[in-house]
Amino acid sequence: MFRVVDLILKKRNGGILTTEEIKFLINSYVEGTIPDYQISALLMAIYFNPLTKKEIQDFTMTMLESGDQVDLSNIEGIKVDKHSTGGVGDKTTLVVGPIVSAVGLKLAKMSGRGLGHSGGTLDKLESIPGLSVELTSDEFFKQVNEIGLAVIGQTANITPADKKLYALRDVTGTIESEGLIAASIMSKKLASGADNIVLDVKVGNGAFMKDLASAKSLARTMVDLGNSLGRQTVAVLTNMEQPLGSAVGNALEVIEAIETLKGNGPEDFKELCISLASEIVLVSGLVSTIEEAKTLVLEVLANQEALNKLRLMIKAQGGNPDVIDNYELFGSADEIIELTYQNKEEVFVESIDTEMIGNASVVLGAGRSKKDDIVDPQVGIMIYKKVGEKLNYGDVIAEIHSNGKNTETAVQMILDAYTMTNKEVVKQPVVLDIIR
Amino acid sequence: MFRVVDLILKKRNGGILTTEEIKFLINSYVEGTIPDYQISALLMAIYFNPLTKKEIQDFTMTMLESGDQVDLSNIEGIKVDKHSTGGVGDKTTLVVGPIVSAVGLKLAKMSGRGLGHSGGTLDKLESIPGLSVELTSDEFFKQVNEIGLAVIGQTANITPADKKLYALRDVTGTIESEGLIAASIMSKKLASGADNIVLDVKVGNGAFMKDLASAKSLARTMVDLGNSLGRQTVAVLTNMEQPLGSAVGNALEVIEAIETLKGNGPEDFKELCISLASEIVLVSGLVSTIEEAKTLVLEVLANQEALNKLRLMIKAQGGNPDVIDNYELFGSADEIIELTYQNKEEVFVESIDTEMIGNASVVLGAGRSKKDDIVDPQVGIMIYKKVGEKLNYGDVIAEIHSNGKNTETAVQMILDAYTMTNKEVVKQPVVLDIIR
Repeated sequence: MFRVVDLILKKRNGGILTTEEIKFLINSYVEGTIPDYQISALLMAIYFNPLTKKEIQDFTMTMLESGDQVDLSNIEGIKVDKHSTGGVGDKTTLVVGPIVSAVGLKLAKMSGRGLGHSGGTLDKLESIPGLSVELTSDEFFKQVNEIGLAVIGQTANITPADKKLYALRDVTGTIESEGLIAASIMSKKLASGADNIVLDVKVGNGAFMKDLASAKSLARTMVDLGNSLGRQTVAVLTNMEQPLGSAVGNALEVIEAIETLKGNGPEDFKELCISLASEIVLVSGLVSTIEEAKTLVLEVLANQEALNKLRLMIKAQGGNPDVIDNYELFGSADEIIELTYQNKEEVFVESIDTEMIGNASVVLGAGRSKKDDIVDPQVGIMIYKKVGEKLNYGDVIAEIHSNGKNTETAVQMILDAYTMTNKEVVKQPVVLDIIR
Repeated sequence: MFRVVDLILKKRNGGILTTEEIKFLINSYVEGTIPDYQISALLMAIYFNPLTKKEIQDFTMTMLESGDQVDLSNIEGIKVDKHSTGGVGDKTTLVVGPIVSAVGLKLAKMSGRGLGHSGGTLDKLESIPGLSVELTSDEFFKQVNEIGLAVIGQTANITPADKKLYALRDVTGTIESEGLIAASIMSKKLASGADNIVLDVKVGNGAFMKDLASAKSLARTMVDLGNSLGRQTVAVLTNMEQPLGSAVGNALEVIEAIETLKGNGPEDFKELCISLASEIVLVSGLVSTIEEAKTLVLEVLANQEALNKLRLMIKAQGGNPDVIDNYELFGSADEIIELTYQNKEEVFVESIDTEMIGNASVVLGAGRSKKDDIVDPQVGIMIYKKVGEKLNYGDVIAEIHSNGKNTETAVQMILDAYTMTNKEVVKQPVVLDIIR
């Protein structure tokens, strides 16, 4: 038996914890035989003396084994998964899922709800009338086998150790530890059972990772970790210095996703979806170069097979597939307010405080500030002017879709989020780097 | 109002906590409105990003103000105090107290009981038949005014914040933070009310501080801290690579202290007492050079005024002062076992594991391993051969005074504690450095 204080001292003094020590610490913590105050001291020691690759593996595997693991062996073919570290206007699953299933891969995705400034895929999907994200395991496997695609809520008791540790890290200033972040994300992904994983690591003022260097380092750690544990893993580093695409809000985002599958949709969002989908196709071994992967992806977009996959998924999960052709079925917010540029002098958008845009959508009711808040599917924001774009008198900067809740606050937040400049501003790429 | 996690992050990221922030953290923690798990994370952050001088002052003052402060204004003259960081065979208070009161200073000392390998002054004093360490405040002040000396148990609620923080540090691997150690010791000393403080900082395998460099740094921090808060403070760094003097055990140590006041006693112990007493005399401003201070000290030893002070104190506290002339009044342990050197070849004592000697005395019953253990006044160990001494066939290394409890274990521990060598070994000085 180990003495907890000895293990804290070991890590504090720069030692490396063994597999047995890490298992003891995490399992005893979950069982409640080690108190919070010892683990929080350990976590702070880990912040200062980062986990080694081996320790990260051990943390990951122990957290993975602390709960249920999803067995996807009933699903035929190549099972893939996509994970985003969370952003504003991030509706990529709704486009990437249909694309990769149209190409022939299987995406059996368990997703989450939104909390704080970034939205959740489940909330977006539920803005589709009738659609349910609560399937039984059998229904879930059957749907994936038949159409290659399902997105449901998390029902299994996945990585309870991670949940308990994350809650403690959140209140003890120990979130920002690369090894712990990697272990947290990857333990959940591994527990979800897919063979091939693409990680969408967001970088910028609207993301958890604020700078490219740390995001790259985290991405490299996660990719190596996934590969070392037998999953083909790739990471795409993507821009979150501004909302992704235009739509922020549930129904608004689903409509934007549908538009993108139809070949329309905002350029940055379309580019990101194509990149993520191509990386999944490549990492899954369907083709041998990224160019071939991209060709396949563009093909299923052009021939509307991807759009059809979304239609099939909506139908299979009980939703009304007519939404794809008739957006009025989503309903609409009571008031739509345009924010227009009112000055004579030409300016450029210098930056957008993306987290503030996300929070503005939350105050309108599109997201949750507390876990049990109820989400309003219709409300949200359309961001029409992005970083680097020129504003002329009368241009619409953004549009607020409100049902009367905190409208003025949201308007003010959006205005505050924008910084303008007289000088020309370079537009930002959406894909910053790829870590294979 | 502050958010605790923001303050943890501030310290974690190398920031400096303000006075208000430190007060908020410590006071709320004592009140129970900040949980242990946040404070332990903060303490670990402090381990890695050490407290600045100003932060140490603020920690000290806030802990000081968390409880009672002893008001010594009823005592006339110059009030002094002595603090030892704890060692094995450390009976210096019983000699230094009588010396400084004989010189004309006032020592109103509140002392502690032993726990673990180092003994406590109260336990030693209570081996004197009849002596009580429980005086009322009035009795305490009266005695100090009349004879210049009293040693009693801690009754006031001194620095409860330190008690709570120390207990947490003990189980979270956050003891070894110089700033926190300094604040812990000095807040207690300041609360005890003396104007002038001498710190006996032990260094070595029997002490809390294992190496001279860290001990020196801690001593410097504490001296600066005391001076900056209006108390004249001096620190003596002293050797704890072997027990101090010969006697380890309560009555045995009192007898050794009496012998030392009579002009006998082990050289190392006598030297240390003279040094500590001289530093107190100097820091109190009675004289202007250390040579003058030493002259005063040697005078009260030679004319037995110091010995007489001990006699007066024993009598004032209800003890039998005849013990000074008749050691049989202490009673004796049932068996006294001599450990003799049994080999023909001459060797030298290379080192003594001092903590093990302390623990051997604990297993005999001279100390406590748990708070509510009962101490046996008669048992203990006499260490006759110290580091650097030569052993010839038949020499007595040590003597075990036992009342039949764990005798064999203690014998084995003492043998294990000694390391011998063929080569000559340099004897160790007892005073390593003085930080004024």
